Amino acid sequence: MKKIIFLALAASAALSAPLFAQANPEETARLRDAALQDNLAWEITEGLTTEVGQRKAGSDAEARARDWAVARLEALGFSNVRVETFEVPWWERGEARAEVVSPFPQSLTLTALGNSGATPPKGLVAEITGFESLAALEAADPVTIRGKIVFVTHRMAPAQDGSPYGPVGNIRRNGPSIASKKGAVAILIRSIGTDKHRNPHTGVQEWKDGAQPIPALALANPDADQLERIIKRGKPVTISLKVTAKMDGKRSSGNVIAEIPGRDANAGIVLIGGHLDSWDLGTGAIDDAAGVAITTAAAKHIMDAGQPLRTIRVVWFGSEEIGLYGGGDYRAKHKGEKHHVLAESDFGADRVWRFDTSIAEAALPAMKPLAEALAPLGIVQGRKNGDASGSDISEIQQEGMAVIELSQDGTRYFDLHHTPDDTLDKIDPAQLHQNVAAWTALLSVAANDPVEYGPVSVKK
Amino acid sequence: MKKIIFLALAASAALSAPLFAQANPEETARLRDAALQDNLAWEITEGLTTEVGQRKAGSDAEARARDWAVARLEALGFSNVRVETFEVPWWERGEARAEVVSPFPQSLTLTALGNSGATPPKGLVAEITGFESLAALEAADPVTIRGKIVFVTHRMAPAQDGSPYGPVGNIRRNGPSIASKKGAVAILIRSIGTDKHRNPHTGVQEWKDGAQPIPALALANPDADQLERIIKRGKPVTISLKVTAKMDGKRSSGNVIAEIPGRDANAGIVLIGGHLDSWDLGTGAIDDAAGVAITTAAAKHIMDAGQPLRTIRVVWFGSEEIGLYGGGDYRAKHKGEKHHVLAESDFGADRVWRFDTSIAEAALPAMKPLAEALAPLGIVQGRKNGDASGSDISEIQQEGMAVIELSQDGTRYFDLHHTPDDTLDKIDPAQLHQNVAAWTALLSVAANDPVEYGPVSVKK
Repeated sequence: MKKIIFLALAASAALSAPLFAQANPEETARLRDAALQDNLAWEITEGLTTEVGQRKAGSDAEARARDWAVARLEALGFSNVRVETFEVPWWERGEARAEVVSPFPQSLTLTALGNSGATPPKGLVAEITGFESLAALEAADPVTIRGKIVFVTHRMAPAQDGSPYGPVGNIRRNGPSIASKKGAVAILIRSIGTDKHRNPHTGVQEWKDGAQPIPALALANPDADQLERIIKRGKPVTISLKVTAKMDGKRSSGNVIAEIPGRDANAGIVLIGGHLDSWDLGTGAIDDAAGVAITTAAAKHIMDAGQPLRTIRVVWFGSEEIGLYGGGDYRAKHKGEKHHVLAESDFGADRVWRFDTSIAEAALPAMKPLAEALAPLGIVQGRKNGDASGSDISEIQQEGMAVIELSQDGTRYFDLHHTPDDTLDKIDPAQLHQNVAAWTALLSVAANDPVEYGPVSVKK
Repeated sequence: MKKIIFLALAASAALSAPLFAQANPEETARLRDAALQDNLAWEITEGLTTEVGQRKAGSDAEARARDWAVARLEALGFSNVRVETFEVPWWERGEARAEVVSPFPQSLTLTALGNSGATPPKGLVAEITGFESLAALEAADPVTIRGKIVFVTHRMAPAQDGSPYGPVGNIRRNGPSIASKKGAVAILIRSIGTDKHRNPHTGVQEWKDGAQPIPALALANPDADQLERIIKRGKPVTISLKVTAKMDGKRSSGNVIAEIPGRDANAGIVLIGGHLDSWDLGTGAIDDAAGVAITTAAAKHIMDAGQPLRTIRVVWFGSEEIGLYGGGDYRAKHKGEKHHVLAESDFGADRVWRFDTSIAEAALPAMKPLAEALAPLGIVQGRKNGDASGSDISEIQQEGMAVIELSQDGTRYFDLHHTPDDTLDKIDPAQLHQNVAAWTALLSVAANDPVEYGPVSVKK
């Protein structure tokens, strides 16, 4: 069934081919189909999560992961494999414990958010004051908050495109600074996640506008439910906290870079990748071993099929989770180079369902062969209005470079994101293979089509 | 639709009614249907898990739970509400940490099994030796185990009747003693559970035949997967462990008992209940707040409908998890009393799908009205051969008493059993209500039918 469809598409693409040379649709289809059968992305994901495990930004484990990546990329036959290092701030998670002291003594499961402050060594005990939204916290009179532990709860619905992460995630990104500036001694937020497990979701937050660090913690969703129920009983709720998180200078991090040199060194670079670092609670399987594995496996398929027109550069970015340090370093070092297009995989390993573009208006017709190559995988064309992006590549994208985004199904991504549960068993090999096939098709088209995809005018 | 079925059943039951007085099928159906709409079981489950939370056997929290139970049962109008106390051994979980030292440094998520020993205060470091089954461990030459950490892995499939828990659970029950006697310094087992979350399953084990306590720990299933993968790499695997678990004397526990006195004090007791204690990792929602809630709510419905023929006794057993201490104490104190039938709810809160009996042969025809009352709830009659039992009631059952078992769907029970994830959000209110309706029907029949269900000849 599938083969018949592919042949029909290849034939129609051939009939409508423009006069100048471009990616060969038959070859693209052949490579895409072969990638569906390939196990390399699984092997990379399995290897990195097993032989390194967690690889927190700046940690010894992240350094081991870079060594692992270099060895693997060289063994696969990539050229110019190298590490570009940079420094990152070091934050240590330490321990975080919380107990309801009254009215109903019991412990709560939580974890520190990135850059959380500590309690005094003996801990602290304070009354909770609860808010149902960030807006409610923002509106609150500081008098009602001073000396208290703030609790902000909310709900986050699963969505295929992951869009609730923007607004709901602001509770994590901004809540701690707001609470600190209003005099709170600590803040607990409901995990930014869609699951019902005792696995809290960590994630970065930064102290804004001179806010003093306080303990900033995420409760597992069942514990946030529990605290809501306890508060609703109407009695004052007192909590004891002990948190030993701390900032401690700088550490070394780095981007691992590998290339497939193109036939035309002036044709611009097709930059793809994901991030090598993970949060420390899980083994970073969906975030983002899968992303580096998918993009690397796709590049390997293209490499094995013969030299492409354009250079393909695969980047395993470092220190994404703590603030896009790898993306920033890459931008600083490479913004002067011509990039044909950027694309990143950093949204798990579930199937690609849509592709979006942020390319020059004149290049939009050149998306037709890509759309035709992706359609048999169930991938439709989405936004053409310049919203396509990616986490690490969002930095150099600001230099006016074109981006194509292969959007993954994120319905269950925020069940696992930044939790201890981000482990290999959550990866569905069949969907992982579909990703590799989609990326192989993308590379086959983008690395061989002489049409320029950029530049893109940058939004303010 | 449902109402029509009920009326038809009531009519057919009336036609086949024996000459002596018995439970009124129309009344049973009416009470059963009313129970489907009732929220009391949810309120009890929500209240106990919120206002007490975890209630480990012998803990202060279990004592608070007894106070909570007494207050609640009295408020509901039960008679003779009282606590019968007994002593239990006290085991403290402490902390348990494990790190792979080599070849791939990383931490593992685990928890101590009941009665686990400790490591030396500074921890221990030893090589792992892995076994794929308890049989393989049993067959192993002690020379290959001495001084090592044993790892026993296995798989447990979800099953509606929970039957894999027997054989697979033996790894937890017997593995530690076997490993200890062969000279292991510690044992890690794959959690006895069917989930894929970073939540290890605790559970009791006892040191047999003079086995010396060693650290006995359960890895979360993703961590057991990970350790299997690491071992399969073929290099020696070294683990560091730190475990502070300890035995520490005796503590007080107790059974909470409440009654609905019957019209005939000599007609025997209908004993129902579940257990009040829970493991300490979760809040014991499915194990077993739901069980005490379901049985208590059903008894309340019967009480409100008028005095039954037989006395209904509701028992919230203490210290079930650490070895059926409440059941043993109840047997010792009440074995001289006439019990008409025993029934316990201790398998979560998912729907009842079958009822099983362990009753006198002569009483089997008396199950017909019960079968007819349960059929509209989708409950079929199962085993009649004397296999019906329950956890706490298994003690006094050995005195020759009849048992009826309302079997719940256990397909997802072992995803949650004995983990931090046993929390209120896992309870499906609709299925909880179906349970209450089934128990209400059971009580309506069993507490009013003059036919004797026992005695039952006891298997050796």
